[in-house]
Amino acid sequence: MSRILRINTRTKEFRFEEPGIYSGLGGRALTSRLVNNEVPGDCHPLSADNKLVWATGLLANSGAANSGRLSCGAKSPLTKGIKESNSGGQFAQVMPRLDLLAIVFEDKPENGSEFSLVEIYSDKVIFKDAADIVGKDNYAAHEDLKKIYGDKAVTALAGPAGEKCLTASTIQFSDPHKNPARSAGRGGLGAVMGSKKIKAVILDPAAKGRGNPADPEKFKAARKRWTEILTGHPVTSEGLPAYGTSILVNIINEAGALPTKNFRYGRFDKVADISGEKIAEVIESRNGKTKEGCHTGCVIQCSQRYNDKDGNYVTSGFEYETVWGFGANCLVSDIDDIALMDRICDEKGVDTIEMGCTIGVAMDGGILPWGDSKGAIELLKKIGSDDPMGRIIGNGTDFAGQAFGVDRLPTVKGQSLPAYDPRSVKGVGVTYATTPMGGDHTAGYAVATNILKVGGDVDPLSREGQIELSKNLQIATAAIDSLGLCLFVAFAVLDTEDAVQCICDMVSANHGIEFTANDFIALGVDTLKNELEFNVKAGFTKKDDQLPRFFSKEKLEPHNSVWDYTVEELQAAKV
Amino acid sequence: MSRILRINTRTKEFRFEEPGIYSGLGGRALTSRLVNNEVPGDCHPLSADNKLVWATGLLANSGAANSGRLSCGAKSPLTKGIKESNSGGQFAQVMPRLDLLAIVFEDKPENGSEFSLVEIYSDKVIFKDAADIVGKDNYAAHEDLKKIYGDKAVTALAGPAGEKCLTASTIQFSDPHKNPARSAGRGGLGAVMGSKKIKAVILDPAAKGRGNPADPEKFKAARKRWTEILTGHPVTSEGLPAYGTSILVNIINEAGALPTKNFRYGRFDKVADISGEKIAEVIESRNGKTKEGCHTGCVIQCSQRYNDKDGNYVTSGFEYETVWGFGANCLVSDIDDIALMDRICDEKGVDTIEMGCTIGVAMDGGILPWGDSKGAIELLKKIGSDDPMGRIIGNGTDFAGQAFGVDRLPTVKGQSLPAYDPRSVKGVGVTYATTPMGGDHTAGYAVATNILKVGGDVDPLSREGQIELSKNLQIATAAIDSLGLCLFVAFAVLDTEDAVQCICDMVSANHGIEFTANDFIALGVDTLKNELEFNVKAGFTKKDDQLPRFFSKEKLEPHNSVWDYTVEELQAAKV
Repeated sequence: MSRILRINTRTKEFRFEEPGIYSGLGGRALTSRLVNNEVPGDCHPLSADNKLVWATGLLANSGAANSGRLSCGAKSPLTKGIKESNSGGQFAQVMPRLDLLAIVFEDKPENGSEFSLVEIYSDKVIFKDAADIVGKDNYAAHEDLKKIYGDKAVTALAGPAGEKCLTASTIQFSDPHKNPARSAGRGGLGAVMGSKKIKAVILDPAAKGRGNPADPEKFKAARKRWTEILTGHPVTSEGLPAYGTSILVNIINEAGALPTKNFRYGRFDKVADISGEKIAEVIESRNGKTKEGCHTGCVIQCSQRYNDKDGNYVTSGFEYETVWGFGANCLVSDIDDIALMDRICDEKGVDTIEMGCTIGVAMDGGILPWGDSKGAIELLKKIGSDDPMGRIIGNGTDFAGQAFGVDRLPTVKGQSLPAYDPRSVKGVGVTYATTPMGGDHTAGYAVATNILKVGGDVDPLSREGQIELSKNLQIATAAIDSLGLCLFVAFAVLDTEDAVQCICDMVSANHGIEFTANDFIALGVDTLKNELEFNVKAGFTKKDDQLPRFFSKEKLEPHNSVWDYTVEELQAAKV
Repeated sequence: MSRILRINTRTKEFRFEEPGIYSGLGGRALTSRLVNNEVPGDCHPLSADNKLVWATGLLANSGAANSGRLSCGAKSPLTKGIKESNSGGQFAQVMPRLDLLAIVFEDKPENGSEFSLVEIYSDKVIFKDAADIVGKDNYAAHEDLKKIYGDKAVTALAGPAGEKCLTASTIQFSDPHKNPARSAGRGGLGAVMGSKKIKAVILDPAAKGRGNPADPEKFKAARKRWTEILTGHPVTSEGLPAYGTSILVNIINEAGALPTKNFRYGRFDKVADISGEKIAEVIESRNGKTKEGCHTGCVIQCSQRYNDKDGNYVTSGFEYETVWGFGANCLVSDIDDIALMDRICDEKGVDTIEMGCTIGVAMDGGILPWGDSKGAIELLKKIGSDDPMGRIIGNGTDFAGQAFGVDRLPTVKGQSLPAYDPRSVKGVGVTYATTPMGGDHTAGYAVATNILKVGGDVDPLSREGQIELSKNLQIATAAIDSLGLCLFVAFAVLDTEDAVQCICDMVSANHGIEFTANDFIALGVDTLKNELEFNVKAGFTKKDDQLPRFFSKEKLEPHNSVWDYTVEELQAAKV
């Protein structure tokens, strides 16, 4: 098993360690265990006591399809609880080539210190002055780094938002297409990176090679079956590659669960202008690409290359949640404006879900009119500057709500809710309320079973079965995140009898251990337990496991559904 | 017993009710009981579910010295817990003349509604359009109201900050000197008033008369003794009248507990420029007044009239905490600039303690240089405007900290700490940590016994005896706040054997009941229990009963003292 690199950002010392007590862990299991072990629950997320951990999964760089996701962990400046923020990009593919399981950034420099650029090699860490790229947007900064480190430079960046320690800040990771377009988006971890005065991290450009599985034959067989599973399921082989995640725009609107006008309605009358089908049509008409992977080894290819009217690249990783957030949620139907907002968020380094809800709240507060996409673009451009409005917007929904005197705030544990109204997809509402991550769909994506009918069929409007569904999905997701697998593999896994065994075979063969389906479940359960334990130390109680009151008080059209779970009932969704 | 007036701010309906289950309660006992009974713990403080309660004490308008304080209660937009914010001014003197024990503002108007001006009579409530004074600073708005309602108009105002629902907003009450200079300062209750779209409240200008005690002879005798007690103690008869509360500047600096440069040091090298003695000298040289009461019937007279160099009125109610907050805490020594900042806070309607800490945090974040009083004045002037910087500053310390990426935040439960470093006045540190109010010195002013040696002598630097001291003071304070008495009576009460009995005699004689010293204690205990119970419903846990970590990690000069209580130990300070 490879090593943990610890970097003291104050003294600029580093050491490579054996995993020790973190042996056998990867990805989210590792970040959450380490944060729970080593970060005081009551510390300020921007203080020297917090640690920023980046960990690869147990299948990283193994050659297994879709195994290159990176887990970023810390105490979240946004939720004030534990956070695992998951990103695509090349970083987790290359770390193992430097024999790195995880990188831990500790302590913080004195007030007034300058930003550093950190080069990481297999035997050393070099701090350099980052002055040349400080204040630059992410694409420009990445261009500069490519000039120094080569076209395929594998980088992590704190954008202008992260430099300013804004709580919606992302960490942006470079993708295989030479853009810094992949985000550890949720929970404001870019602010933790910024607080430690790290502007950029670059992995040794000379790093090479693929991992050697302990049992090459067994691994090869399992890996082959794994690819078959992913390429055999309609969601992972047809829906996602064809339309990206925005295939959901029409589906969720049809289900009456597309949050519209800051969660007032379940359907958007201009949905046709922002659908996945429409986006694919626009992309094709402009010689973009409808299929692209976020890291090498991806067989799902849900990303894309969205060009403007002149055929120039605008953005990729243009997700359903982004289209919804700046679209239906803000009554915006101009898909080019929405794509531009996605790009600006990647440039400044802010989470698009948080920003979609924040702009909706700004509209609710009369800061700009509903549907004013040009005004929204101007607001987003201010992020990362000294402009106080940029500081307000870049700190997310609850913060903007306080600044603008708005009490309709679609957040749980301080984090904005994503693109599924919990009144009409109750399973995901249970996840929003109870995951240690705060408002988050990826932590237990019950939309799959509620709406897409993957892994069973649980009526999205009924109270029945949702808590058990969410709990099981939360456990499975924590395990998948720990292996470094893309969450979208879950669609195929849920519908394929031998999928979990196939995953276990890959882990076993890769590491020369016996990893069973029970171990898979235990990995998920243990990870969640670490996260819940940290949140208790951070001061969370079951009272925090609930949706905002307006979901219980206002009926959602067209189903006239309300949120109707008590806090007591919801506790059963926690491990 | 007089009536409770309930006003629905959405329907503009009102009703006068008998006190019913609130019978026998007044002031803080009433506001806290009502908020705990009627406001859902998990509601948003700016939502229709919150209620704003103004209650007079059990001795209001009785003629007893210093009995005219008003308790304002609600769920706090700043702390997100229960709040009783206590104000001087004439309001609580006049409410009883309308047979009003309390006024409760309920519900809230639809989004986009205009502000109202509310006239209150003994038999009716009239809503009027407030357009003429909306957006105006408090002194100008009050001038306008005096033109309509007479020179002695008794008003309550939400300033520009309250209109914008900023969480440091005060409610400003008019004083006997025709200025809107008295604040329900702490906890952001002006934002609750603003959320309910109430710009101003005016009490019937024709209201007259003093209450008739049930037992006039007994009351008269007790009242006489009460005045003797207050006028016989050195603090209430000499120190406070001579120098106002700023007499503490030199005393607390000498004790090494004057928080300097955002709580980095315990002494300020320019203390002589901002001392109470210096202020008195300046006031006298400019034909101001060193003695003034905040409400009729005050025999302590700790307020003043501070004029500028040309002899024009600048401010009154110019407290030690304000002088400290904008002074030592921000390394500012220009007392005229500090007085102007006090005035601007009264104009915009924001809490000076919250603002002092906020400006300190802005200086820590590099927004303006340390000691830059002119820059601070410009920042404060933005509050209440559409300028986003004004929104940031007006939302207080934690908010500004998040906006500016500063993790050194001297707050407890979201509320800024006042002018006594808890490392060197440990008794008041226990109060900061454990009072249901958040960081608040008035909730259990252990400075009295730690530093002033009133009510005993407990070493301010020792761990010994502080928890018991704070607990007892918290109980006594809750009782005093429930009677409508000025907190400063406590100096005399603590040192005078028959003082509590004298208070009980006044309450008994006033209401024709048997009110004993045990009832006095029970009133305090019950009030605190209501408050703690509400906070539990609001999601607080014992983890919230602690000071920021830097107080435990950094030694404070000159005593090299640290904060050294565990959360577990601190629980003993709660009833």
